[in-house]
Amino acid sequence: MPSGSRQRIELDALRSFAEEVFRAYGVPARDAETAADVLVAADRRGVDSHGVARLETYVSLLEAGQINPKPDIEIVRETVATATVDGDDGLGLVVGPYANRIAMEKAEDAGTGWVAVRGSNHFGIAGYYPLAAIERNLVGWAVTNTSRIVTPLWGAERMLGTNPLATAFPGKEEPSVVIDMATSIVAYGKLEMAHRRGEPVPEGWGIDARGRPTTDPEAIMEDGAQLPLGGDRAHGGHKGYCLSALVDLMSCLFSGAAWGPFAPAFAAGDNVPEEEGREGEGLGHLFGAWSIGAFTEPERFRERVDRWVRRFRETRPAPGTDGPLIPGDPEREAAKRRKNEGVPLLPAVVEDLRAIADRAGVPFPESG
Amino acid sequence: MPSGSRQRIELDALRSFAEEVFRAYGVPARDAETAADVLVAADRRGVDSHGVARLETYVSLLEAGQINPKPDIEIVRETVATATVDGDDGLGLVVGPYANRIAMEKAEDAGTGWVAVRGSNHFGIAGYYPLAAIERNLVGWAVTNTSRIVTPLWGAERMLGTNPLATAFPGKEEPSVVIDMATSIVAYGKLEMAHRRGEPVPEGWGIDARGRPTTDPEAIMEDGAQLPLGGDRAHGGHKGYCLSALVDLMSCLFSGAAWGPFAPAFAAGDNVPEEEGREGEGLGHLFGAWSIGAFTEPERFRERVDRWVRRFRETRPAPGTDGPLIPGDPEREAAKRRKNEGVPLLPAVVEDLRAIADRAGVPFPESG
Repeated sequence: MPSGSRQRIELDALRSFAEEVFRAYGVPARDAETAADVLVAADRRGVDSHGVARLETYVSLLEAGQINPKPDIEIVRETVATATVDGDDGLGLVVGPYANRIAMEKAEDAGTGWVAVRGSNHFGIAGYYPLAAIERNLVGWAVTNTSRIVTPLWGAERMLGTNPLATAFPGKEEPSVVIDMATSIVAYGKLEMAHRRGEPVPEGWGIDARGRPTTDPEAIMEDGAQLPLGGDRAHGGHKGYCLSALVDLMSCLFSGAAWGPFAPAFAAGDNVPEEEGREGEGLGHLFGAWSIGAFTEPERFRERVDRWVRRFRETRPAPGTDGPLIPGDPEREAAKRRKNEGVPLLPAVVEDLRAIADRAGVPFPESG
Repeated sequence: MPSGSRQRIELDALRSFAEEVFRAYGVPARDAETAADVLVAADRRGVDSHGVARLETYVSLLEAGQINPKPDIEIVRETVATATVDGDDGLGLVVGPYANRIAMEKAEDAGTGWVAVRGSNHFGIAGYYPLAAIERNLVGWAVTNTSRIVTPLWGAERMLGTNPLATAFPGKEEPSVVIDMATSIVAYGKLEMAHRRGEPVPEGWGIDARGRPTTDPEAIMEDGAQLPLGGDRAHGGHKGYCLSALVDLMSCLFSGAAWGPFAPAFAAGDNVPEEEGREGEGLGHLFGAWSIGAFTEPERFRERVDRWVRRFRETRPAPGTDGPLIPGDPEREAAKRRKNEGVPLLPAVVEDLRAIADRAGVPFPESG
């Protein structure tokens, strides 16, 4: 996409703007700072779909009273290595870091820590949480369910979200291996982009309202469904369905969050139909952390990661390619560029952000 | 495949046979019982590739001294919720259940338990371990690396195994949701079957020795590679690579097992080439267990699983299908059938087993 039409804003300016917007909607100062940090981590790492482009949705949900700006986040059950947290419908961008911190502290005390969360909302990029863990010599784990858009294999109905999972293994001299992936065949944003360009999508990405395979992005987005990773049966679509189910069950069943098709929609007023009934409280997450030192010498662990990274970089390349990447490479490249050059925002996103600035009475940052 | 040519053996007879064979190769009585139980769990659940069809390989590795029949399995590091276990090159079918038991006991004490294992070998079907956990009101987790056969996306080299992961969520009246899947696009056994029938495989399953996509199963098996789940970039092959890497890193880096291309081969004498150097000890596993009661009321958890299963069974079916299955359905169906009818063994497998019976001086069971 041409970046000439984009407006570049410095990361710090974007973070401060998001923070002020959250504060203007009643979010306490420290929580607003946390929420902005999680949100802008996506812009920093090049995951534009999950960054400030979503601020409009968070703000609308705050305005509609569907997100509680001052939640009473509560630990409702606890052991030495586990906890269950009720997020009281707070911002996922606040509830997530709160719960992840408990998981990390327990890992430091007990070797490993696991925290199940209900009553939350979208928590930003899943990779944010394991990236926080590596700063403390921990390996982190984060999963969340999301609003329904994916059909199980052999289904013709939206039953699961794109349900991401993330983890990260820290290196010593080499960069960390960072895995952060939706369990759907592609991110929803790729459908939107093809649609905007008026182009078909590859076969295997989705089905139309009647459950037939289609390459029309509009048919998938309108009332069809995305397919799980793998696509059809011959290419492992049942495995993608299993992965998505795994994330749904992990995120919701320990905590009592609303699972599968009952997950709250990520749009103000766009709720699960009454006839579906009700299951659980808000979105669910599961955060985990393993203390590296509980299992082995952290120094040796990091050296092993280094050797892993170097050996995988040496993989013989497939014809016409530069060879495999290390998981996390594309996001690291983006972060390096954007640190200096700022975040290139699409005109439509800038327009949204200016409108939010007006509504919230907060100044919009100048281009960097 | 026609089952007329197959010989049916009762499960108990098969289990006793495997047990006696292990004992004949110096495995202590209780370990032989455990190993046979894990092995035959695959035959019971219809996963023929991982059951007694593999007894020949285990026996060859015992004969070649590459598996230690009397390992001194040792906990080398431990916290209240974690342990690192050295399997001393024992049977994975013995080391696995040992380590899984520690994970379950720690979960009962601390809310969750995690055990990393090195110096092990192939541990049977991954699903065996979380199935043991549900008997104790736990949700289990099992991953293992395996011998290299899968290339990373954009690679033309075997760097990772089929690296399975498994977990299971117990229902109350409905069956448990059991997820047990390789992270490669298909199981290796499917290539073997297509090859035996002289048929091509679907595009996207593998590459030849020069890294070009091929539909010839022989080219993939001979010196090509399997592709990770997702296949090409457009269909999420990078995600399948990430999953396979995740299992490799989880299984090997905490424990110090031989990761990626260094994983020992699952065939006697067929070792990692000298020029590759050496990394870590044996295969690695990571077992986890979460106590349901640590997070929520086990009764309510199981009721939630029931409602999940019922709602997913009601998913609108795709045209020409009966609708989605619940993960674990096919294996449960097989188990129901085989409990009554015995295990239908292919003539080639029966031949192998008869040869083992002769070598071990153990009687081969009569047909059921």
